[in-house]
Amino acid sequence: MAGGAKARRLPRVVRERQMVDAAVRCFARHGYQAASMDEIAELAGVSKPLVYLYLGSKEELFTACIRREAGALLAAVDAGVGGPEVPPDERLWAGLLAFFTYAAEHPDSWVVLSRQARTQGEPFAGEVARMRDEIVGFVAGLIGEAAGEADVVITGRDVDALAQALVGSAESLASWANETPGVAAKEAAATLMNFAWAGLGNLMKSERWSPR
Amino acid sequence: MAGGAKARRLPRVVRERQMVDAAVRCFARHGYQAASMDEIAELAGVSKPLVYLYLGSKEELFTACIRREAGALLAAVDAGVGGPEVPPDERLWAGLLAFFTYAAEHPDSWVVLSRQARTQGEPFAGEVARMRDEIVGFVAGLIGEAAGEADVVITGRDVDALAQALVGSAESLASWANETPGVAAKEAAATLMNFAWAGLGNLMKSERWSPR
Repeated sequence: MAGGAKARRLPRVVRERQMVDAAVRCFARHGYQAASMDEIAELAGVSKPLVYLYLGSKEELFTACIRREAGALLAAVDAGVGGPEVPPDERLWAGLLAFFTYAAEHPDSWVVLSRQARTQGEPFAGEVARMRDEIVGFVAGLIGEAAGEADVVITGRDVDALAQALVGSAESLASWANETPGVAAKEAAATLMNFAWAGLGNLMKSERWSPR
Repeated sequence: MAGGAKARRLPRVVRERQMVDAAVRCFARHGYQAASMDEIAELAGVSKPLVYLYLGSKEELFTACIRREAGALLAAVDAGVGGPEVPPDERLWAGLLAFFTYAAEHPDSWVVLSRQARTQGEPFAGEVARMRDEIVGFVAGLIGEAAGEADVVITGRDVDALAQALVGSAESLASWANETPGVAAKEAAATLMNFAWAGLGNLMKSERWSPR
């Protein structure tokens, strides 16, 4: 019974963190439907009733996972990005680097956010959509700023479209980097920065591609 | 009984197409789990036993949907792209235009492929992954060719990474375009072409972005 006594001495917040850690791992590996509360409890080293007592139903636990991981990803990007005194391309670079580093260091978290959460309907899809909207908004802000500095007239819709393109390429590249041995976060960020910023830079100079 | 007699006169291939059409619509709107065989049968104007008889279980029906829609998307892109006598940027433009046109004209198909199919585990995820790999391979081929023409030395991994970035941005932009009123397929394709090709063009000229 030493284990039980020890378990009771852990503060609730620590226990909950262990349970959510275990849940993120199971949801990432098996998907929402196939993940079992039994496996989550076992992985967290607690009883199944304790998981239900602390975190509620499987649905509530999945929501808790998405919310926590989305918050952590946003916080990591936020912390990486400098203030408005830093030029927009440097801020985008810092944001991309923070994003790819987070995805590389938390692959299960990335799978849950980019894949598992999106197709289970509400409220899950909404949670992750809000996080994505926030990132798209941040990127759109940088593009708008860069356009302003370069005195380029660009519509709000063009800015939104470019931000969507950039975020989509970052998502795709993060998943590819995690599945490809030996790709470092910095390499993925540099590839995307070269790809995106060089292209955006040309747009800012109004050098557009056109069919010959 | 006129309806029944009429129904029996339709060739099986036509009936099956109606059922798969109805299924794509239901799966796109409700997701795999929530879509019901009752609704699919009703939408197709047939009895539920007939759906099971012709197309098997819900799982087999979903697989049939993914396979048919993935095939249609690939065929559309293939038909749009010219042969090797056309320069790589023109071929990419034609491929993007065909892709965005397909996604705009078949929004339910796009939702099933880009969203619903990916997270239901095997065999669904595998079906759509194969289609995506084929598109990434096509894009990687164009980038490799363009690099060759420009006499640029670029590693296979860089080519793969750029292809992943480009396909990810196309996916993101297609979903955004479908959800944003008034964005034409051609506009989305042009945005991405400007974004991507200008960036790739700079890479080919070895003009890389670097922190100041």
